[in-house]
Amino acid sequence: MAGYTAKFDTVTEAVMVSAGELVVEVADRAGIEIHQPCGGQGRCGRCAVRIESGRVRRRSVLRLSQADLDAGYALACQTVVEGDVSIVVPPPERIQRRLTTDHIAPESVVPEGYDPEKAQTVRRVLLSLSPPSMDDQTDDWGRVAMALRRATGVDRLEASLEQIWHLGGILRSSDWQIAVTFVAGGTEGETARLIRVQPATEAENEPLCGLAIDIGTTTVTIWLVDLTTGRVLHQASEYNQQITRGEDVISRIIYGSKGAGGDDLRALVLETINGLVEAACRRTGIDHRAIAKATIGGNSTMMHLLLGVPPESIRLEPFVTAINNWPLLRAEEVGIAMHADGVVDALPGVASYVGADITAGVLAAGLRSTPDTTLFIDVGTNGEIVLGSSEWLVTCACSAGPAFEGAGILHGMRADKGAIEEVWIDGNTYEPTCRVIGNVPPRGICGSGLISLVAEMFVTGIVDKGGHINLTLETPRVRRSVKGAEYVVAWADEAETDQDIVITRVDIDNLLRAKAAIYAGFNVLADVVSVGLESVQKVLIGGSFGKYINVEKAVGIGLLPDLPWERFDYLGNTSVRGAYLALLDREARAEIARIAASMIYIELSADNTFYEAFTSAMFLPHTDLSRFPSVAAAMTNEG
Amino acid sequence: MAGYTAKFDTVTEAVMVSAGELVVEVADRAGIEIHQPCGGQGRCGRCAVRIESGRVRRRSVLRLSQADLDAGYALACQTVVEGDVSIVVPPPERIQRRLTTDHIAPESVVPEGYDPEKAQTVRRVLLSLSPPSMDDQTDDWGRVAMALRRATGVDRLEASLEQIWHLGGILRSSDWQIAVTFVAGGTEGETARLIRVQPATEAENEPLCGLAIDIGTTTVTIWLVDLTTGRVLHQASEYNQQITRGEDVISRIIYGSKGAGGDDLRALVLETINGLVEAACRRTGIDHRAIAKATIGGNSTMMHLLLGVPPESIRLEPFVTAINNWPLLRAEEVGIAMHADGVVDALPGVASYVGADITAGVLAAGLRSTPDTTLFIDVGTNGEIVLGSSEWLVTCACSAGPAFEGAGILHGMRADKGAIEEVWIDGNTYEPTCRVIGNVPPRGICGSGLISLVAEMFVTGIVDKGGHINLTLETPRVRRSVKGAEYVVAWADEAETDQDIVITRVDIDNLLRAKAAIYAGFNVLADVVSVGLESVQKVLIGGSFGKYINVEKAVGIGLLPDLPWERFDYLGNTSVRGAYLALLDREARAEIARIAASMIYIELSADNTFYEAFTSAMFLPHTDLSRFPSVAAAMTNEG
Repeated sequence: MAGYTAKFDTVTEAVMVSAGELVVEVADRAGIEIHQPCGGQGRCGRCAVRIESGRVRRRSVLRLSQADLDAGYALACQTVVEGDVSIVVPPPERIQRRLTTDHIAPESVVPEGYDPEKAQTVRRVLLSLSPPSMDDQTDDWGRVAMALRRATGVDRLEASLEQIWHLGGILRSSDWQIAVTFVAGGTEGETARLIRVQPATEAENEPLCGLAIDIGTTTVTIWLVDLTTGRVLHQASEYNQQITRGEDVISRIIYGSKGAGGDDLRALVLETINGLVEAACRRTGIDHRAIAKATIGGNSTMMHLLLGVPPESIRLEPFVTAINNWPLLRAEEVGIAMHADGVVDALPGVASYVGADITAGVLAAGLRSTPDTTLFIDVGTNGEIVLGSSEWLVTCACSAGPAFEGAGILHGMRADKGAIEEVWIDGNTYEPTCRVIGNVPPRGICGSGLISLVAEMFVTGIVDKGGHINLTLETPRVRRSVKGAEYVVAWADEAETDQDIVITRVDIDNLLRAKAAIYAGFNVLADVVSVGLESVQKVLIGGSFGKYINVEKAVGIGLLPDLPWERFDYLGNTSVRGAYLALLDREARAEIARIAASMIYIELSADNTFYEAFTSAMFLPHTDLSRFPSVAAAMTNEG
Repeated sequence: MAGYTAKFDTVTEAVMVSAGELVVEVADRAGIEIHQPCGGQGRCGRCAVRIESGRVRRRSVLRLSQADLDAGYALACQTVVEGDVSIVVPPPERIQRRLTTDHIAPESVVPEGYDPEKAQTVRRVLLSLSPPSMDDQTDDWGRVAMALRRATGVDRLEASLEQIWHLGGILRSSDWQIAVTFVAGGTEGETARLIRVQPATEAENEPLCGLAIDIGTTTVTIWLVDLTTGRVLHQASEYNQQITRGEDVISRIIYGSKGAGGDDLRALVLETINGLVEAACRRTGIDHRAIAKATIGGNSTMMHLLLGVPPESIRLEPFVTAINNWPLLRAEEVGIAMHADGVVDALPGVASYVGADITAGVLAAGLRSTPDTTLFIDVGTNGEIVLGSSEWLVTCACSAGPAFEGAGILHGMRADKGAIEEVWIDGNTYEPTCRVIGNVPPRGICGSGLISLVAEMFVTGIVDKGGHINLTLETPRVRRSVKGAEYVVAWADEAETDQDIVITRVDIDNLLRAKAAIYAGFNVLADVVSVGLESVQKVLIGGSFGKYINVEKAVGIGLLPDLPWERFDYLGNTSVRGAYLALLDREARAEIARIAASMIYIELSADNTFYEAFTSAMFLPHTDLSRFPSVAAAMTNEG
C-alpha cells in the first residue's frame, strides 16, 4: 500500500493514503467527520470538499455543477485519491448554503443605476411657496400647481375633493413649506394625480415608501421599499387567511361566489396584507401614510378576490376573467393600510390561470432579455409554465393541485419549520436521512421533501415505475396500514407529532398527477412552437416552492425535463420580485404590460395533445425513459 | 279745426283729427283705450303703437330703440298727428313682451351645428359584443375596451373598482349587448373615464342627459339637457336654501367657517340642487342615473361651499380662494343626484369675488368674439364687471350688497310673483302706477322695481340728488314714520300683505351705496385700460337681475353709464347659459378656461381711485351731471 499523503486544512499533520481510498476514509483517519446524509451514495452532495491541489478521480459528479467542478469541488464519498492532495473541508452550513441559497438570485438587490427621478412614477418634492399677498392673489391650489410645474415639469394635476379640503390648512400651518407626493406615468402631457400634501418638516423625517406584494393562494408576501433609494426595508410572509375557506383557487371561487363569500374572502386577504404591513411599519418605525404606492402580483383569482370582483367566470367554461388589465386604483378603494390616496397598481394577468404572478415572474426572470429558449416555471398551488425568449412567449397553466404545497398529502405541510424538505435513502438498508427545516424534530413533509422522498424511493426500488410500493422489501419501514401501502419516513419517537410520519400510495398518486400535469404542460408548449425540450437553454424556477426544490430529485420523478444541472436556476418568489421591479421602475412596469400583451396563452383543457402527454407522464419518471438519461444512469448505478 | 283722418286697425271707421291732437286722444275717440301706466309722460313705453302710414311728430322717443323707430313705432301719449294716418295698436301683452323678453337673447337655443360626436366630452355608444368562447378567452373588461376602441378610437379607459365589480353581471344579463357611457377630453392619447355600462335595451329608451347649473347666492338654476341633441328638456330655479344662514357671501363665509357650518351650508345647497334635479326628472320622466355630466357656474364662495372647501381665506386679506381651477370631479364625491360615476365640471373662477359665474357669463355674452369694447355686468348679490374685447379682459367685483336682490330693503323681495318690478309716477299727482310680476296684488318691491321707483322719484322731485325725500310735497304718499321719511308705493288695501308698501330713506341709501359701488367699478376698469366709458360699444347685462332691469331707469339713478339705448343688451342668466354651452361643447369649455386665465383682476379694495369714484357716485345720478345727459334732459322735460 501507500504512496500518497493527504493534507487537510484544519489539521496540522498530513495523513498517509492507501491506493483507492476515498476522501471520506482518509478524512476519517485524520480525525475529520464528514457528514453524509445519503449514506455515501453521492446523491445528497453534502460531503462536497474542495481539492486545493493534487490528483483525484471523481466517481460521480451528479450533485456538482460545472462551476463547482471548476472551483475544485468533489464529493468526498465518491472521490478516490490518486496522488498527494491538499483538501479543504468547508463547514457543513457553508456547503448547505452553497447548494441551496447560493443559487438563488439575490431578490432584493436594488436594480443597478436606479434613479427615482427618471424611473419612479411616484415622487415627492419639497416646495417652498411664497405666501399670498395683495400683489399676488393666486389661489392656494394654483400656487401649489405652479410651484410643482416649475419644480418637476408636471403640467396637469388631478386631485380628489377631500384633498382640496385640507390644502389651505396645511399650507398655512406649514408656513407654506410643503412636500407634495404625486404619481405620474411620465407620458408627455399626461395628468399627474396628487397623493399627499404635508408639511415639509414632516416629510424630511420620513422616507417615501412603497409596497411590493405577492398574493399567493397559500402565502402572502410583502416587501416594504424605500422608493427614493430602492432599498428593501422589510420583507415578510404570512399564510393567506383565505386558506380556512379552501386550499386551492377553485374552492375559493366556489366559496366566493356564494352569498357574502366574496366579501368574506376579500376581508380575509386584506387582514393578511394589512397585518403584514402594520408589522412592517412597526418594525421599521414607518408611518403607514408614508406608503404612497403598492404594486401587486398574484394569480388572477387572488387578484379578483382582493379587489372584490366576482370570480365565477374564471371557473366556468370558457374560463374568462372579469379583467386582466386593471386601472390604477386608489388605496382607499382597495383597502390596503397605506396612505388613503396612495395608488395601487394591480399588475396585469394574461388569462384565468396565468395571472400577474406570472407576468411579473417573467419580468423578474429576465425571459425577454435573452435570445435563448427559456422555460420558466412557477409551481405553487397551480403550476404555470412559460416557454419563450426575447422574441416570443407561450404559456399555459397546469392544474397540478396543491400537492407541491403539501396539501392533499396525508402528512403534507408547507415549507415551514418542522417540514422534511429533503430525504436520502440508503439503497441497502432503506433507512432514510432527512433534512428538516429549522433542524427540529419533523412535523410533516413539504413539497420539496415529497419530491425528494419519492425520487429516492424510486431509485432505491421502494416504489416502481407505476408508483406502487414494494411490500416485499426486508424493512419495517414498508408496510400496509388501513390506508393501504406506506413507507415510514420518521418514527413516532423521532417526530414532533409523536406519530409515524409516512407517505402512502395515495400520496404518491397525487404527486404523480401533479408532476404529470406539469411535465405534460412543458410538452404541449414545446409542441406548439415546435421546439424540442432538450434544446431549452435555461430552466428558471420561481415561486416560493422553487426556492427549496432539489432539481436532481425533481428530474428524478419526471417533474422537470432532464437537462444539465447548469441550465437550472432557482429564482425564489419571482412574483414579488417582479412587483418590486415594477414598483421601482416605470420601464419595468411597461415591460410587464408588454409581456402580458404578447404572451400567447394555450388553454390545456382545449388541447388534444395534453391528455396524451399527461397519461405518458403518469409514471416514474416517464413511460419513455429515454427522455430521462440521467435517471436511467442513476438507476443503473444503484442497481 | 279738423283736417286729418285717423284709421285704426281694429275699428272699421276712420275718425276725424283736430290739429295738435295726440294719438291717445284720437284713439280714445275711436273707442280704443290705450293703457298708460306712467300717466302719459312718455316714460313707460307701454303705449307704443305702430304708424303704418301718414305723418306724425314724436315729442319723446325715450323708450324707443332705433329698431322700434325704424319699424314705425311711436308712443301714443307723446305723438302728435300731423296728417292722415293709419295706426296699428298692438295688444298690451305684445308691447310688454317687445320691451322685455324680446330683448333677451334666447338662452336655451341649441348652438348652431351642434355635433355631439365632435363637441361632447360625454358620449354613449352601443356595443354589440361577441360572447367569450374557448377560442376567444378575452377578459370581460378587455372585451369591452377593445370594442370601445374599435367604435370610438378611445385608447385608454379608466374605471373605479365598483364599476368593474358589476361588469360581468351586466354583460351576461344583457346578452353582451351594452351601452357604454364615458367621458374623454378629446386630447390625443388622453385617458377616458368610464361612467356607465348598461344593457343596450335600457339605453335605447333613455336620453343621455346633462345638467347646466348656476349656483347663485340667492337663486339656484338648473337646466336639464339632452346631450345628444343639445335640447333643454327642463329649466327650473329655486332659492338657495343657504339663504336662511345669511343673505350675502360674507355672512355665508362667516357661518361656514364656524364648527359644522360648512357641512350645513353644503347640505343646504345640495338639497336645493337635488330638489330641482328630482323635480326635473319627475317632470320629464327621466331616471336621474341618465344624467352623466353636470357643468356648474357660480361665484367662488358658492363653489367652495358646494364642494365642501373651507372658504375663510376668501374673506380675509389678501382674499385668496382655495382653488380656482377645479379638477373634474365624480358626482358621488360632490353629492349631486345624478349617476354616481357621472362627472361634475366645476367651471374655473378668477379670484375670490370673480367666479365661474363670470367666466361662464363672459363666454355666454360673447365678449371675446367682438373687437368692440364691451362692458359686461352681472348684478346679483354682488356686482361683477368685466370690460374687454376679443383682445383683452379686465374685471373687478363691487361689494354692492344684496339691495338689487331686494334684501336689506324694508319691503324688498326677490323678482318673484307679487314683486313690484316697475313703477311710473305722475309728475303732478305723485301717484304711482306699478307693474307687478304675475299681475297680482303686490307683496313687496324687487331690485328692478326699486331702481325704477327711485329713478321716478328723482325725476318727479320726490327725492333730491342726495336721496333725501321731499316731505313738503302735497301728497299723503310722502310721510315720516318711526323709520324716518318714506314714500308709499302701494296702500294696504291694494297690497297682498294688508300693509302699506313703502320705500324709506334708509332703503334709498342702501340703493345709492349699491349703485355707486358698481358705477365706481366701471370707472376704475375704464381708467385701468384708459378707455372712456362713452366709447363702450356694448353693455351686456347678465344675472337673473338683468332680465328685469329697465335700462332707462338704471341710467336714471346712475347705476349704468348713460349710453344710447341700442348699446344695451339683456342677456338673462349668463352663468347658466355659459355652463350650458360648456356642458355641450368642449371648445366652449376650453374657451372658459382661456377666459379665466387671461382675465386681469383688479382688486378694488387695493385701488386708490376706487373710493373717490365711489363717493362721487353716491348721488342721483352722479355729482357730475354731464356724465348723464339723458337724465339731465328728462329732468328738464319734467321740470
